[in-house]
Amino acid sequence: MKHREEALALDRDDPLAPLRGQFALHPGVIYLDGNSLGAPPAAAAARAQAVIGSEWGEGLIRSWNTAGWFALPRRLGNKLAPLIGAAENEVVVTDTISINLFKVLSAALKLAHERDPKRRVIVSECSNFPTDLYIAQGLIEQLDRGYELRLVDDPSELPEAIGSDTAVAMITHVNYRTGYMHDMAALTGMIHQAGALALWDLAHSAGAVPVDLNGVGADYAVGCTYKYLNGGPGSPAFVWVPHRHQNAFAQPLSGWWGHRTPFAMNPRYQPDDGIGRFLCGTQPMVSMALVEAGLDVFLQTDMQTIRRKSLALTDLFIELVETRCAGMSLKLVTPRAHVQRGSHASFEHPHGYEVMQALIARGVIGDYREPHVLRFGFTPLYTRFVDVWDAVETLRDVLATEAWRSPEFAARGSVT
Amino acid sequence: MKHREEALALDRDDPLAPLRGQFALHPGVIYLDGNSLGAPPAAAAARAQAVIGSEWGEGLIRSWNTAGWFALPRRLGNKLAPLIGAAENEVVVTDTISINLFKVLSAALKLAHERDPKRRVIVSECSNFPTDLYIAQGLIEQLDRGYELRLVDDPSELPEAIGSDTAVAMITHVNYRTGYMHDMAALTGMIHQAGALALWDLAHSAGAVPVDLNGVGADYAVGCTYKYLNGGPGSPAFVWVPHRHQNAFAQPLSGWWGHRTPFAMNPRYQPDDGIGRFLCGTQPMVSMALVEAGLDVFLQTDMQTIRRKSLALTDLFIELVETRCAGMSLKLVTPRAHVQRGSHASFEHPHGYEVMQALIARGVIGDYREPHVLRFGFTPLYTRFVDVWDAVETLRDVLATEAWRSPEFAARGSVT
Repeated sequence: MKHREEALALDRDDPLAPLRGQFALHPGVIYLDGNSLGAPPAAAAARAQAVIGSEWGEGLIRSWNTAGWFALPRRLGNKLAPLIGAAENEVVVTDTISINLFKVLSAALKLAHERDPKRRVIVSECSNFPTDLYIAQGLIEQLDRGYELRLVDDPSELPEAIGSDTAVAMITHVNYRTGYMHDMAALTGMIHQAGALALWDLAHSAGAVPVDLNGVGADYAVGCTYKYLNGGPGSPAFVWVPHRHQNAFAQPLSGWWGHRTPFAMNPRYQPDDGIGRFLCGTQPMVSMALVEAGLDVFLQTDMQTIRRKSLALTDLFIELVETRCAGMSLKLVTPRAHVQRGSHASFEHPHGYEVMQALIARGVIGDYREPHVLRFGFTPLYTRFVDVWDAVETLRDVLATEAWRSPEFAARGSVT
Repeated sequence: MKHREEALALDRDDPLAPLRGQFALHPGVIYLDGNSLGAPPAAAAARAQAVIGSEWGEGLIRSWNTAGWFALPRRLGNKLAPLIGAAENEVVVTDTISINLFKVLSAALKLAHERDPKRRVIVSECSNFPTDLYIAQGLIEQLDRGYELRLVDDPSELPEAIGSDTAVAMITHVNYRTGYMHDMAALTGMIHQAGALALWDLAHSAGAVPVDLNGVGADYAVGCTYKYLNGGPGSPAFVWVPHRHQNAFAQPLSGWWGHRTPFAMNPRYQPDDGIGRFLCGTQPMVSMALVEAGLDVFLQTDMQTIRRKSLALTDLFIELVETRCAGMSLKLVTPRAHVQRGSHASFEHPHGYEVMQALIARGVIGDYREPHVLRFGFTPLYTRFVDVWDAVETLRDVLATEAWRSPEFAARGSVT
């Protein structure tokens, strides 16, 4: 692409363009960090007011029934299910990814142990999002039964690492840093071939790329609602367990929301039939209610349409960076092959941190990931082709003028 | 008390009366269920709009730093600390009671094991809120090392039940059903005398009765923010660990928010120094921000003033029910002794469920707990003495006219 007008033309032809109006976006900002925190759906503010003013304020305690609060984790789970190839009553929206990972990892180890007590290895990737590894480490230490976390440095090493000693392979579908996407069907098949269970983290997949959990025969999945699903900061996560595994065992976080009859106040835990047993404690209803505002936008399109635009956006971004910022020390770390790419694009730059600060100061918001990585997320529901053009022009200017060398951009200690 | 005017006079003399205006209360409703879900602080709606419109909408990803989201669990913990006798940096607001209980119970068992591996019993009460027992059961089953949950039927049996085999006594300070309150100082002393650790559930205590965790030398505590603290439906819970225990061990839910340097993206978990290690995953910021609106009301008074009014309210309620509803099959199950009473009062009635439905239909909202218990919570920040009078008059009418026999009140299946 040579001219901004070409980007504008793509926007005019974009079937998703009308959905952009359903987000509360601010002029002067090009937001390329929806892979970390999605932008607010326009409906979110009114939804919060209804929950606080009417449901909480007027309905008070009655709203657990009358406003459907108690049922919300399941209802939202069913609304989310089609986006990830899950069936009815296989998903609940609840807790955090870390907590949900603890539940399914515990469940997976237990199931694997029943099948073959010699299987004591959890396989994952060194480059996995750290909290996944930390949760596995915490569980292994707590169990204290000789379980091992085996980490590979590169996806190509997975086939060798997953073997007859492997209980479960815990894989993040799209890498948070590089945007590398695994072939979920092939890898699940390979994991099953080795007799292990396949646990998928969909943090950077749900709402970003088509996922077909039942189609590939996966065993467990967790994911988050505050990235591409636009549920709001820290909105509750989700957990998927297919019907065939749901009643095979309990998970250790056996709180009252997972009880078969929570209000019978029985002192003995009896897990609910089905996905309900993966609930634990009382959920934060205001944050959870906002998840629905995000999901409702997805009902107006489909993941294939989203994927087409996502690839067009990342293709264009990569092309423009490599042509218009040529010779400016940017190195693509995201795979060029479509089948290996999620919905963000990352470039290394020796001064990645400072460059990103300079971009943000000019209203182009991406983020920085250690070490050296400039990360740009593309959310087809609200990102325009002209945003891609303008963002690259800003990046070119920041690099060409060396604006990033200004002391104001050198500060460290960022937490995001 | 013989006349409604006497109640109105008490309200005129009530030092807490001005704080009632800081809650969004609806006319025509007498709300006596703040022990289950507190009423909304008037500031909550505007706070939610600021979080959604400004912090999320304009600040976007930057708000994790600029709006202090990432620091919120600690900052709110410090704001809550004085209400429970905790020191700075001993409390975080995060996750749910059930999850937090799993963390501290795991930590307690580990510490007890290091001190004396023969201590393998968790002592609690059969009448404890079920989720506490369920979490202990789930943990015991997961550890599979011969731990035992020993439940007593009556508080008087605790001294005998807690012995040389006891790792931890997990006690709820105020019983959710009866309102019975333990002597926290005496029981903690007795637990320590037996060489065990004292874990307190403050669900019905925080913001309701004075608590002095450090004063009594307790070992761990969890509690909730959506009851007397008025944080909103399902708002995040809290966990307290005293400085002396914080670095003694890790807890198994070792997510990235508990890491020493979460954004270094190190694949190896290293717990934060101090209370930070009891955090796990990304927290729901909209729900969490509302907790502050509730806590801010407490800054304008103190727990002694609240306790004085709480006892006056429950005293009056018990007196009026026993005089004006005499002979109507109501039996007090809450202790008469002030030192044994929390901030709610419960009466048994053979048709408790139906009676409560009839009361709610007339705008007096308490709740029902299996079996047979009518439960009435008193929140001194917004409950008036005249509310007590009017509620009892409504109860008297419902019983005298047998209005509760109407078929509309017979339905079962309530989830709250």
